[in-house]
Amino acid sequence: MQQPLEGITVVDATQVMAGPFCTHMLRLLGARVIKLEKPGEGDALRHYSRESKFAKKAPSFIGFNTGKESVSVNMKHPQGIEVVRRLVTHADVMVENYRPGVMARLGLGYKALNELNKRLIYCSVSGFGQSGPLRDNPAYDHVVQAVCGLMSVNGEPGSDPMKVGFPIVDTFTGYCAAFGVLAALQQRERTGLGQQVDVAMLDSALVLMSSIVTPYLMTGAAPKKTGNRGYNRSPTSDTFHTKDRPITLGANTQSQFKTLCRLLGRAALIEDARFATGASREEHAEELRAVIQLALMQRPAAEWETLLNKAGVPAGMVRTLPEVLEEPHLKTRDLVLPLSPAGDGERHYSLDIGIRMEHRGAVPMPPPPELGEHTSAVLLDLGYSQQEIDDLTRDGAI
Amino acid sequence: MQQPLEGITVVDATQVMAGPFCTHMLRLLGARVIKLEKPGEGDALRHYSRESKFAKKAPSFIGFNTGKESVSVNMKHPQGIEVVRRLVTHADVMVENYRPGVMARLGLGYKALNELNKRLIYCSVSGFGQSGPLRDNPAYDHVVQAVCGLMSVNGEPGSDPMKVGFPIVDTFTGYCAAFGVLAALQQRERTGLGQQVDVAMLDSALVLMSSIVTPYLMTGAAPKKTGNRGYNRSPTSDTFHTKDRPITLGANTQSQFKTLCRLLGRAALIEDARFATGASREEHAEELRAVIQLALMQRPAAEWETLLNKAGVPAGMVRTLPEVLEEPHLKTRDLVLPLSPAGDGERHYSLDIGIRMEHRGAVPMPPPPELGEHTSAVLLDLGYSQQEIDDLTRDGAI
Repeated sequence: MQQPLEGITVVDATQVMAGPFCTHMLRLLGARVIKLEKPGEGDALRHYSRESKFAKKAPSFIGFNTGKESVSVNMKHPQGIEVVRRLVTHADVMVENYRPGVMARLGLGYKALNELNKRLIYCSVSGFGQSGPLRDNPAYDHVVQAVCGLMSVNGEPGSDPMKVGFPIVDTFTGYCAAFGVLAALQQRERTGLGQQVDVAMLDSALVLMSSIVTPYLMTGAAPKKTGNRGYNRSPTSDTFHTKDRPITLGANTQSQFKTLCRLLGRAALIEDARFATGASREEHAEELRAVIQLALMQRPAAEWETLLNKAGVPAGMVRTLPEVLEEPHLKTRDLVLPLSPAGDGERHYSLDIGIRMEHRGAVPMPPPPELGEHTSAVLLDLGYSQQEIDDLTRDGAI
Repeated sequence: MQQPLEGITVVDATQVMAGPFCTHMLRLLGARVIKLEKPGEGDALRHYSRESKFAKKAPSFIGFNTGKESVSVNMKHPQGIEVVRRLVTHADVMVENYRPGVMARLGLGYKALNELNKRLIYCSVSGFGQSGPLRDNPAYDHVVQAVCGLMSVNGEPGSDPMKVGFPIVDTFTGYCAAFGVLAALQQRERTGLGQQVDVAMLDSALVLMSSIVTPYLMTGAAPKKTGNRGYNRSPTSDTFHTKDRPITLGANTQSQFKTLCRLLGRAALIEDARFATGASREEHAEELRAVIQLALMQRPAAEWETLLNKAGVPAGMVRTLPEVLEEPHLKTRDLVLPLSPAGDGERHYSLDIGIRMEHRGAVPMPPPPELGEHTSAVLLDLGYSQQEIDDLTRDGAI
């Protein structure tokens, strides 16, 4: 059975993170992705490593660009622009993440390309969107984390603003963009028409924070830093020390609380009036935490994890990233995607889409492209002759 | 023009967070969502508020369940199961987030329902997925944050494990599930067949961490806590104090660094050999930070934000959630979705999908359903008579 997006062609004028992550998702679903790169330099993410063995292909670049085709093209050169216009005429999707207005000034904005191809889905990814007073502000992930309110709710109560320790907004925004493209493809099935899709890092970040944004809108109570407390605020849904290392418990409900007390050998807590209900446990959180903490010190985290989960109390030992990737469980999920070996024999990896689909088919992934690796092949397909390609190269258009 | 998912019917056997967030996204795209709820209690998220005015409709429940229809049905009752089977026969999508195996034991697993409806897309959302040694472990958002490695990279270097301050894994997992449903719908356009879609919180969390997972897989260097440093680790991509409040800067490139120095009135730094390149700036990060910090204390954050962004240096004042929601910019983005007034005249809100689509159409959203509000109407549509509905109610099946 064909892949979900087999037959779909994506022209990819994005670089660094959110944009390439979007087209990575589409590629993993079977789309053909033609990545446009600036001659000589290419995607800035190529250069995000100082190790010589990753020259021009930094690990993060590899992870987000496997299986794409690379066409080098100078979008400031009239002939380069013509190449993009020809490409788009035959494509289903265009994704770009330049500052708003840049593509339009080049003659490659939505309106111009929509005239060439009414079926084209044109997805723009930016920091603050294609409209509004902040639209021209440049953005990086961590800057949006500051603006969107995230840093004010992350960390221990009373602590300084703290970002999430990795580019969560970039990744999620790329995912939103891919989601928007899928929604537009679905709509095109009925209407036959493409459309403009406008995805902003700030909007996306707030959607990711939905669970605290909408309650605030209705109650007017500003969300606070809650440290490691779970969403329902139960003092027994928190992170504790054990004999060896930290564990996170999720004893939210009355029955989970009772089970926890019994397994910790503290069944008396169940009868203690201070801890009789969720509300009273919150009121006496400090005392409860101290007792639970003391009991947990008796055994190592892995033992507690097994014991508690078996009895229906969610519990997770805090793991490092290397540790979770070594979990036998994770190995059965096929999430880590080994790439076909590159020329140098190094084994490279990407992550699969994180969704197991019964009929999606296997995804054997070639390594990421060298800069401009597919320029000639793609241009020949577009009808350029070898002579024309040589001329374009000499003129600096590709 | 019709909405992307107009005409698509989703049967929604989910509760609390990731599952309802998935079907919320599908609803926002125009799908009809029929939410199945346990008679008398309903979705546990209904009860996540202690304020009487939010009794049975907690703010977070409102945010994730607007515009859905509620059918109360007892899935442990043979007649209740029959109601679900009849519903699914006419549906396009089924989403469930019970513990793996539960739906199959009820006769409502993928295999059984696929026999009734070959076009059905059956999406299961769980903590650890439908397969693998951890599949039976119960899960909450914060527990998965512990297991997936996130807590080990979030926060200041050397600090204890720290979760993200809101249920990021729940939300993202719900988004992944909606994404998987869209991909499966796209595939069905060609094949005519539905399929099983298996989405796990652990897998999703790792996809969200892609930008640090894939580099680790290739370099073997375990990611560390980086505090507020941006992804490219530049010391001038970090959070600083100003005259009044914190600001996050994104001076990554050489040209951004030079512009920053000039605007701070510290042009001499540009000629300083210690700060000549990205690598040397990292080496002398402490000294550089001190100088930049001192200069920033001269003005308030809002002034710096305007000045720096205009000159092309990404900069964002750290805002609280109430503050960002008051930004004139955000108000132009139509992200906050006012719901049609509920009976009590209270104004309730949800967040829109975070993607502006040219032809998506307006999304006037009715308030979330009362528990079982649509039971009779939906069952009458399925061909049940009023007498049968009364009998089912009396028998506790609905």
